[in-house]
Amino acid sequence: MTRLHVLNAPGTLTFDEPALLDRLAAAGGLEVTVSRDLATLADDIGDARILYTNTKTDLGALSAAAPHLEWVQIISAGVETLLPTLPEGLDLTNASGVHAEKGAEFVLASVLLLNYRIPAFQEKQRRHDWAPDFVRPLRGKRALVLGSGAIGGEAIRLLAGRGMEVIAVNRSGRPAEGAAATVTLGGFDKWLPGASVLVSALPATPETVGMVDPRRLGLLPQGAGVVSVGRAAVFDHGALCEALRSGHLGGAVLDVFPQEPMPADDPTWDVPGVVVTPHCSVDDNKGYLDRCTDIFLQNLEARRAGRPMPTRVDPAAGY
Amino acid sequence: MTRLHVLNAPGTLTFDEPALLDRLAAAGGLEVTVSRDLATLADDIGDARILYTNTKTDLGALSAAAPHLEWVQIISAGVETLLPTLPEGLDLTNASGVHAEKGAEFVLASVLLLNYRIPAFQEKQRRHDWAPDFVRPLRGKRALVLGSGAIGGEAIRLLAGRGMEVIAVNRSGRPAEGAAATVTLGGFDKWLPGASVLVSALPATPETVGMVDPRRLGLLPQGAGVVSVGRAAVFDHGALCEALRSGHLGGAVLDVFPQEPMPADDPTWDVPGVVVTPHCSVDDNKGYLDRCTDIFLQNLEARRAGRPMPTRVDPAAGY
Repeated sequence: MTRLHVLNAPGTLTFDEPALLDRLAAAGGLEVTVSRDLATLADDIGDARILYTNTKTDLGALSAAAPHLEWVQIISAGVETLLPTLPEGLDLTNASGVHAEKGAEFVLASVLLLNYRIPAFQEKQRRHDWAPDFVRPLRGKRALVLGSGAIGGEAIRLLAGRGMEVIAVNRSGRPAEGAAATVTLGGFDKWLPGASVLVSALPATPETVGMVDPRRLGLLPQGAGVVSVGRAAVFDHGALCEALRSGHLGGAVLDVFPQEPMPADDPTWDVPGVVVTPHCSVDDNKGYLDRCTDIFLQNLEARRAGRPMPTRVDPAAGY
Repeated sequence: MTRLHVLNAPGTLTFDEPALLDRLAAAGGLEVTVSRDLATLADDIGDARILYTNTKTDLGALSAAAPHLEWVQIISAGVETLLPTLPEGLDLTNASGVHAEKGAEFVLASVLLLNYRIPAFQEKQRRHDWAPDFVRPLRGKRALVLGSGAIGGEAIRLLAGRGMEVIAVNRSGRPAEGAAATVTLGGFDKWLPGASVLVSALPATPETVGMVDPRRLGLLPQGAGVVSVGRAAVFDHGALCEALRSGHLGGAVLDVFPQEPMPADDPTWDVPGVVVTPHCSVDDNKGYLDRCTDIFLQNLEARRAGRPMPTRVDPAAGY
């Protein structure tokens, strides 16, 4: 039996302990203890070799107090606050990719929905209007994907898998897997005119805010679609709505908004061609933590088999 | 140069000749003649080695009159009327799979649309109601796919590619590629209670008409989805609408209907949770013939490279 300690301190993301203990029991070979107070963790952890924690802490200090500790699994992707105190010899695994599968599949669903003009059919359906419209599958059409992190990167692979010509846009211009070309944040204008769909999975940073401005929206061809699952601030939201109202854009699936929850009197609700999903392209807290535990168990399986743990942080690379 | 003759006889499906000639010229190495009268084909064909025809004819009689003829490409999948007179040594290729890519991708789009509850979000959108609903991706959910021909078979591969547990249902019970299990038309009741979505891509035959009856709809779990792209008669249409009205089913994407075009006063238009697409999950005539030419050119490329032509008919197998 290997000793595992779970820290479940109060906060936004707390484990459902009975459900978690069931999953850990099913994995076998673990002797599990649980505590809920960060302040007493160094005592509570005892001689555990593994820590699965919902709260970050100074790993240098913890390791000094808990000499048996070999491996810490956290529930976020970001490790920049942990690395400065990470002792040599202590393995750290993060929850990188926790949102990727669902977020990317949601992007695929959105791109297909726009390609097959489902919102337009629904408008005709309301009028009881039988008006066929034959469109080609995704193969050979161009998708411009802003952001090639966990969600964007997986979305690129899925869209390329449907035969799309995917142009990836990221900070470094480093080639994204599956993309026909990868360009930098400032270098994608020339790809806009031939794009069937523009997908943003970008975070909001000084470089990305307002990046998709009226000029760039104007470079998209008539009838193009937009999918927004990163942060809404990447778009000039007013210009985006106007491009839909004017009929320049064919439709949009928007999962993120300038203000969330979106107020009932926000005009975005009624913009023609817009499908509003209320920020659920990625998981809620319960789903999120379930996925974190999936990742922890995959790491555990790899460790037991002597393989590298899939989400082990490389302190030199910083992620 | 290889001599190719195109027969473009009047009918429902006629080639756009300038466009076709452009594509054939782009393939290179072909000397093309065109005629439009089936009655004079044996004279018009001259010493052509290849015939690409929009109309079926007695290939035994044609071959006797055109001894240079080596290969005939037709624009349908069915060859049962041609096989009895097909001379030994004459290659016949059909248009098998012409609808598969688009039909299957439409099924994937529909399954994703239902999984991510897009119709329910749109209903909330009309009420300006911000009400998140977190659902899991397709992975691990069960799809029951009725029919494993060109469209159903490709749909099974796509859904399995998303990690779904796909149960294929066909006449013979012969295993469909990608399916977790394949059962016969009469043997799928036990798989209904765990299905997230039921897809039909079946033709209407004495065995399939009315197959999805009120009892089987009742075996589907609360909230399941339905996708219908084969023939509408596979379903008891009234029972299907009732299962949606009562809320037993969560939604349906219907591309085929008991009467097409669907009359404006048909109550199906307003059934809650239904997305109506007017029989366009497969291509229109132009798209159809473009795909046939894709297939012809793929066969040509294979023949030139000395590889087996992908859609060559095996007279012994009958398809």
